[in-house]
Amino acid sequence: MSVKFDRFLYGGDYNPDQWLEYPEILSEDIRLMKKAHINTVSLGIFAWAKLEPEDGVYDFDWMEEIIDRLYENGISVNLATPSGARPHWLADKYPEVLRVNEARQRDLFGVRHNHCYTSPVYREKVRSMNQALAKRFDGHPGVILWHISNEYTGECHCPLCQQAFRDWVKERYHTIDEVNRRWNTSFWSHDYQNFDQIESPSPSRGEFSIHGLTLDWRRFVSHQTTDFCRMEVEALREAGAVKPVTTNMFYTNSFVNYYELADAVDVILWDSYPLWHKGPETLTAVNSGMQHDVMRGMKREPFLLMESCPGPTNWVPVSKLKRPGMLETASLQAIAHGSDSVLYFQIRKGRGGFEKLHGAVIDHYGKEDDRVYQECRQVGADLEALSAMNHAKVEASVAVIYDWENRWAIEESAGPRNENMYYREAVEKSWYAFRKQGVNMDVIDMTRTLDPYQVVAAPMVYMFRPGFAGRLREFVNRGGTLIMTYWSGVADENDLCFLGGTPGGLMDVMGLRSTEIDALYEGESNTVKSLDSDAVYSCEHLCQLVDLRTAKTLYVYGEDFYAGTPALTVNRYGEGLAYYVCADAEQAFYDDVYAKILREAGVRRILEQEIPDGVAVSSRQSGDAEYIFVQNYNSTPVAFVPRAEGGRVVFGEAGEEMRPFSTVVIEKNC
Amino acid sequence: MSVKFDRFLYGGDYNPDQWLEYPEILSEDIRLMKKAHINTVSLGIFAWAKLEPEDGVYDFDWMEEIIDRLYENGISVNLATPSGARPHWLADKYPEVLRVNEARQRDLFGVRHNHCYTSPVYREKVRSMNQALAKRFDGHPGVILWHISNEYTGECHCPLCQQAFRDWVKERYHTIDEVNRRWNTSFWSHDYQNFDQIESPSPSRGEFSIHGLTLDWRRFVSHQTTDFCRMEVEALREAGAVKPVTTNMFYTNSFVNYYELADAVDVILWDSYPLWHKGPETLTAVNSGMQHDVMRGMKREPFLLMESCPGPTNWVPVSKLKRPGMLETASLQAIAHGSDSVLYFQIRKGRGGFEKLHGAVIDHYGKEDDRVYQECRQVGADLEALSAMNHAKVEASVAVIYDWENRWAIEESAGPRNENMYYREAVEKSWYAFRKQGVNMDVIDMTRTLDPYQVVAAPMVYMFRPGFAGRLREFVNRGGTLIMTYWSGVADENDLCFLGGTPGGLMDVMGLRSTEIDALYEGESNTVKSLDSDAVYSCEHLCQLVDLRTAKTLYVYGEDFYAGTPALTVNRYGEGLAYYVCADAEQAFYDDVYAKILREAGVRRILEQEIPDGVAVSSRQSGDAEYIFVQNYNSTPVAFVPRAEGGRVVFGEAGEEMRPFSTVVIEKNC
Amino acid sequence: MSVKFDRFLYGGDYNPDQWLEYPEILSEDIRLMKKAHINTVSLGIFAWAKLEPEDGVYDFDWMEEIIDRLYENGISVNLATPSGARPHWLADKYPEVLRVNEARQRDLFGVRHNHCYTSPVYREKVRSMNQALAKRFDGHPGVILWHISNEYTGECHCPLCQQAFRDWVKERYHTIDEVNRRWNTSFWSHDYQNFDQIESPSPSRGEFSIHGLTLDWRRFVSHQTTDFCRMEVEALREAGAVKPVTTNMFYTNSFVNYYELADAVDVILWDSYPLWHKGPETLTAVNSGMQHDVMRGMKREPFLLMESCPGPTNWVPVSKLKRPGMLETASLQAIAHGSDSVLYFQIRKGRGGFEKLHGAVIDHYGKEDDRVYQECRQVGADLEALSAMNHAKVEASVAVIYDWENRWAIEESAGPRNENMYYREAVEKSWYAFRKQGVNMDVIDMTRTLDPYQVVAAPMVYMFRPGFAGRLREFVNRGGTLIMTYWSGVADENDLCFLGGTPGGLMDVMGLRSTEIDALYEGESNTVKSLDSDAVYSCEHLCQLVDLRTAKTLYVYGEDFYAGTPALTVNRYGEGLAYYVCADAEQAFYDDVYAKILREAGVRRILEQEIPDGVAVSSRQSGDAEYIFVQNYNSTPVAFVPRAEGGRVVFGEAGEEMRPFSTVVIEKNC
Repeated sequence: MSVKFDRFLYGGDYNPDQWLEYPEILSEDIRLMKKAHINTVSLGIFAWAKLEPEDGVYDFDWMEEIIDRLYENGISVNLATPSGARPHWLADKYPEVLRVNEARQRDLFGVRHNHCYTSPVYREKVRSMNQALAKRFDGHPGVILWHISNEYTGECHCPLCQQAFRDWVKERYHTIDEVNRRWNTSFWSHDYQNFDQIESPSPSRGEFSIHGLTLDWRRFVSHQTTDFCRMEVEALREAGAVKPVTTNMFYTNSFVNYYELADAVDVILWDSYPLWHKGPETLTAVNSGMQHDVMRGMKREPFLLMESCPGPTNWVPVSKLKRPGMLETASLQAIAHGSDSVLYFQIRKGRGGFEKLHGAVIDHYGKEDDRVYQECRQVGADLEALSAMNHAKVEASVAVIYDWENRWAIEESAGPRNENMYYREAVEKSWYAFRKQGVNMDVIDMTRTLDPYQVVAAPMVYMFRPGFAGRLREFVNRGGTLIMTYWSGVADENDLCFLGGTPGGLMDVMGLRSTEIDALYEGESNTVKSLDSDAVYSCEHLCQLVDLRTAKTLYVYGEDFYAGTPALTVNRYGEGLAYYVCADAEQAFYDDVYAKILREAGVRRILEQEIPDGVAVSSRQSGDAEYIFVQNYNSTPVAFVPRAEGGRVVFGEAGEEMRPFSTVVIEKNC
Repeated sequence: MSVKFDRFLYGGDYNPDQWLEYPEILSEDIRLMKKAHINTVSLGIFAWAKLEPEDGVYDFDWMEEIIDRLYENGISVNLATPSGARPHWLADKYPEVLRVNEARQRDLFGVRHNHCYTSPVYREKVRSMNQALAKRFDGHPGVILWHISNEYTGECHCPLCQQAFRDWVKERYHTIDEVNRRWNTSFWSHDYQNFDQIESPSPSRGEFSIHGLTLDWRRFVSHQTTDFCRMEVEALREAGAVKPVTTNMFYTNSFVNYYELADAVDVILWDSYPLWHKGPETLTAVNSGMQHDVMRGMKREPFLLMESCPGPTNWVPVSKLKRPGMLETASLQAIAHGSDSVLYFQIRKGRGGFEKLHGAVIDHYGKEDDRVYQECRQVGADLEALSAMNHAKVEASVAVIYDWENRWAIEESAGPRNENMYYREAVEKSWYAFRKQGVNMDVIDMTRTLDPYQVVAAPMVYMFRPGFAGRLREFVNRGGTLIMTYWSGVADENDLCFLGGTPGGLMDVMGLRSTEIDALYEGESNTVKSLDSDAVYSCEHLCQLVDLRTAKTLYVYGEDFYAGTPALTVNRYGEGLAYYVCADAEQAFYDDVYAKILREAGVRRILEQEIPDGVAVSSRQSGDAEYIFVQNYNSTPVAFVPRAEGGRVVFGEAGEEMRPFSTVVIEKNC
Repeated sequence: MSVKFDRFLYGGDYNPDQWLEYPEILSEDIRLMKKAHINTVSLGIFAWAKLEPEDGVYDFDWMEEIIDRLYENGISVNLATPSGARPHWLADKYPEVLRVNEARQRDLFGVRHNHCYTSPVYREKVRSMNQALAKRFDGHPGVILWHISNEYTGECHCPLCQQAFRDWVKERYHTIDEVNRRWNTSFWSHDYQNFDQIESPSPSRGEFSIHGLTLDWRRFVSHQTTDFCRMEVEALREAGAVKPVTTNMFYTNSFVNYYELADAVDVILWDSYPLWHKGPETLTAVNSGMQHDVMRGMKREPFLLMESCPGPTNWVPVSKLKRPGMLETASLQAIAHGSDSVLYFQIRKGRGGFEKLHGAVIDHYGKEDDRVYQECRQVGADLEALSAMNHAKVEASVAVIYDWENRWAIEESAGPRNENMYYREAVEKSWYAFRKQGVNMDVIDMTRTLDPYQVVAAPMVYMFRPGFAGRLREFVNRGGTLIMTYWSGVADENDLCFLGGTPGGLMDVMGLRSTEIDALYEGESNTVKSLDSDAVYSCEHLCQLVDLRTAKTLYVYGEDFYAGTPALTVNRYGEGLAYYVCADAEQAFYDDVYAKILREAGVRRILEQEIPDGVAVSSRQSGDAEYIFVQNYNSTPVAFVPRAEGGRVVFGEAGEEMRPFSTVVIEKNC
């Protein structure tokens, strides 16, 4: 299923329920929205208390009135199920809906995201609400999408969850002996005698040293959250809803494996809050751009940008204003990477509460002569100008592996650097090195197919999930170019270390055995030196030592007792090549090595030019048109004139230089 | 009521109850006290266990004997009610007297300040104790003052407090709909259905995101503490006590709004522990001096310095010795700012317990040939020399606003800098800029009258408490000079943001609308530049942007996208002037701008000379005499000869230069 | 009792119980062990769940089979009692065996070291297990030592422990009045009315301000742990065991006073994990060397090195590889300081769990061509080469005082530096200054005899434990040289400050009274200057001021208001000399002053040469042979040829220079 709307969605979260005592506000908001080209709002995300003021009593009339008013004005609705925050009466009447923390204390009512995803009562209340909403609103022509709950996250350790976890473990391993074997519980004499003894980890009061348990607990939490989401979707469908469903994700969530949750919804929707103007913009752009590619990679389809902030974000340590042009650039970055929307949190700034100072399209001030409003209006105009590329695809022949379960395993494990393993940073280095060459790229996890790709980077694939090693072998064998790094293939899916040598099962493909890994203190470094040239780069954090078998050495270490031993190797296997990067080298190393690898693998670059630092190039394709996005993230002008043969500039200006925070779009045939 | 004693009080906390097994100690202590000119001690602050060894059984004889002995030796007593630390049997028998923390765990017995101010049992026990003490001791000629409890602080979340909080909320807002409206609870669907659902905030287990709730909880805690204090006073009065009452405050207490507590007592008493010799002394002197002015500003009457430390303070991270002369200088700073006492914690160093290494007049060593004892003796002699100025007033025509509720609101709110908003530092900058010109100054909160003043600085008055905006308008209208800064007038007393533009309700007075506020990371800075001269100053942390209406620009920003926009403005309104400082500029900016403002406003300076850095000038008046204090806080000599026309030096030496840590007092007619 | 084995023990922890499903592993492990000269393994440390799979049902056959197999292959066994981690069924059936933390929450099952040492049930289960093990295995010729439990540590606040603590307090002080007096509870009115009110300290919920209580609680915890250990030993003995017993200690344990625990076992055994390659190796060597001397000092007998790590340690922040030679050097350091063993954690790396990445003799890889295995094999060969010196004694005529209870008292007290008092560092400075002169040294606590020594350093002996001051007086009187430092003799064993002057009771011996102590902020410093030469050294953290009586000044302070007052003094008392170091001076001061003191005291140096930086010299004696160890801890070669008259090199090479991380052993007659 590919979810396509008739235009780029533009708008954001809207909470007229917080303004019911100001009847003039709704009219004024609609006027301001239309003027700003807003065509879509998300409604009802935190409206449960207003939708069901007491148990079983629904009040939907006010919502319908608002949807009607919006629809009459050409504004569509992304309608939320309100399970993201339950009403007070629900927690009072059914305390089981509140979470229990790892110290085994039940939460009080408050904040949000503190409801148990296992609780039968909570599931039943949500199911009934969703069915009622579906019956009333799915048929409304103004409703175009169901926004399931809000930013699912967190975990619960209540007795209901403990039992569900036991059941999940039993379903997975069948016998307690198998659990003991898979979790290696005999270490520290933790052998289980029966399933009833299994409890979730508890750093403050109990167990946290069995990595097999901690890892499976994180899997269970993700599973249970996804199961809750599926229940919400089923409730809508059972009540006859036919509109597509989605749920909003956020990049740093460590509780839910989004590649798993992705399968429960029709289209990916996510919330993006990059810290622009903190440090070099270009690095923020890397982080933000990779996030877009993660989200798109889940389904290899266009996605939706749900929440983004038109002004300063109020809950970060320092709320910087967005410099002029930054909002437009950030919004178009989403489009460039495959989004079919630009949506904000939020349309109108709330008067009180935790996010009352969060940027919004309409300020407390409430009038048009406001810088942020004017910039939002410009973005609305841009999206209308770019409407031809709505739902265009991003075609990538390069992929980087980024895997939630691998991240959990690296985080939970003890050693070689408990301070920081820099997993995400390692992925970003590979991502950025590819991007600098102007190629599109998918970010995928270990469960996804490698068939579409010519080149795959697999940084720090510590844990080989089932089937992954086989897919890598096959990928190289049929002619692909694989780049694997240090700290790969150490453990299986239960975090049990491979015996007999690593990377486990792939020593022949890589042509080497990784032996020891040296961890460096912060501030320490080593170097890696080319054997063919005088290139030297620094490296830090982790240095893997290897014993060569069939691989050939390209770089060696420059210092310490392993000076002269391999730091970058390549091995021919089948029709393909397998590179092994031994150390956490600086970005420039990746840039230079990956450029060469892409060239040798014959990967097509979007532009044939050298791309200056801080300028990003990406593209979307629709029919026989390719839309090439060129963005300058530097806060200074850059001398660069993008040239694509047969292309024409359809957005922005391609003059002698690119202005700071500016975008040029070129359309050409492909 | 103005509380005046017949001499400066000199002495401090004394705990002979800890030395009952050493009968020779009391005699020796009295001998040493008399030799050091000590005339007052505070007794019984932590003596409850000795005063009421079992429930309802009082033993006051030992106390009377001590009071008699002291009185015979010319030493007066500040007699404490012992509610600052309850006896063990009380907690055992009535567990409700122990506090419950925000995580809803009841404290065990221990430390101090962990009794519930709501508990009827605790109140009853304290009431009975106070009445018994009043009956026995109020008539004793040696008792001159009641010291109510000790450093009231902290909060309790027990069921009794929850109910009291609900009652307080109901009394304030009457209906639950009004609570929902004032607290904007519909954000995140937190609407209350009834008052029983209201609970105190709990960062670890429950609610902390409703700013209206967290703010009102802090108000309730302050109210309940003040109410407890009033109950203690009433108990004394009901038993016939006629001596004045006080309670000791400390500057950094965030649990009690001292401007509220001030109204419950007859005279302000406070505990001062500045960190002398940490960084430049002059900055410590600023902090310390402002604290004195805060305390005096509450009643605009002379106050009492209760606890100060003769030697090193033991509970700070690093216990530095006071350099020779520092004790005298710090003690006279209190006098200079309006204190009628210098009192220490404590007279004799305890043998064991948490403060056994805290500085005291009499060391464990116990003899006179001790540096600290000798310095204390000098201070005693100084106070006798200065006795003519006992109860002289500090007359100020300048005020700075520093408001507890505003501080809470700034702290609780999210954004624009969650790291640190630097509210207190902003107040200090204004205070110091005025002080450098040698003017007396009151520090007052938003509830106090502005009538006495020619110039008022209102730094970061984020929350406009009821009536405050009106008083500012009236103050300017009748000819006053107002200086307001960035981040002012953003929210009302419920932390609901003003709609329609800020500073809320005062855009015409200020002649501008504040639009956006940029937060800077630590280490980032901008500049502010004069339009009339080549003066340039740096600024950091926060930069407010404004839209001018009738105001005139005096300074502009030097950098970033808002370079050239206003950084300091002035607006004529009615008979007065309203300045607006847009950015958190460096001290030198405030110094230069405030000097000019004071000059233009015609504020009288105490000395007409230029005052060197690190030298402080202040004055007290009594009848037609003005006593001018000049203090050198520099650790080096400073070339400065204070000259007041018609004045004569009555203390210290006014030679070619002032010695480090030295004081000169000049008396003249006024 | 002096425990001697027939050879240096070489080997380590071995957990074949974790590999029962891999039958080929045991054979391969034995083959690899023999090849590496391994002769001893520790078995069963975490094997309780396998030894007693259900309550009362023992399964020892598998263990016997392993012991047999090892014995047949010449490998002895250090057999553990398994109380270090209890099985799941035990916690399920008897929840009282789980600890309660200071916040009064009972732990869940998990990790290790969370069993209550007071619980009668736990004691009974351990007793039965130990008796069964003793009956079955004590007679086995392969079993040579009982390894009692594992790294006893931690504390429990359960009701059973509270009652045991009350009983312990009552036993110690008899009456509640005496408790109140000793703990000075009248401070803050904390007087106890009866013993039932006594509760352990609780920083998060209750009492932590009575230093007498907190100190006695730490004593009780140590007592209770030692009592548990004695119970374990008795169980073995009652069942007829005759083999020696030991328990493994670790240096940084703050819960157990190891000088107390030492008396419960036959031989000292300890676990050493120095952070080699973090900062200068030489400082790590100091820390590590002093730890060895602490362990040996407890019994003044050879000790055993139990756990050490052949490769990187996985639970430290950064797991560095050991550089080539480091393992050998560190292993021989233990031998040089009096160890009769080199044992590792562990022989074979586990597949999963918290320490799966911890260094081991046999890697997951499992084969011989592994750098770590090869280095282990070398160490095995070294120990065989050095076998003649097995059980040789270290003879010391110098001692440094390092006292657990003093450490607790300094940590618990408030002031003069709550940031860090640097007690351990002060001891290390004295230790290192002596070591640089190449003298052997014991590290002992305040309870040990001073009879064997010519020179004793007593750094920061804040708390004078009973009898200690008398022993110091006697030591000096009979001709010894004492070096005492700042912050000594301040409080008695209940942390009550001495009255009448300090160091309490020793002012005549030291010839001075210490008056005030100045604490310096981090980054601040002062200097100390010689009166005889132009030597100047910096000092920091703490500067004691003194009033001289009979002592003579050798150094004075260079700065601040106490410039020119004494910084180092010496006093003649009886036949001896008493030095007093006033300030926390830099290492070079100690080096120079101690060199002179040793020379004047006529202490014999092991080598008569000047010893270069980073080279360590120590010796062991057996019969009339002295074995002199010279080790280079520098990562660079050092020009040094050790020469001992009449000696011959029996290990290593004494060429022109010493290689990095190399050892030379010289044998000579003594």
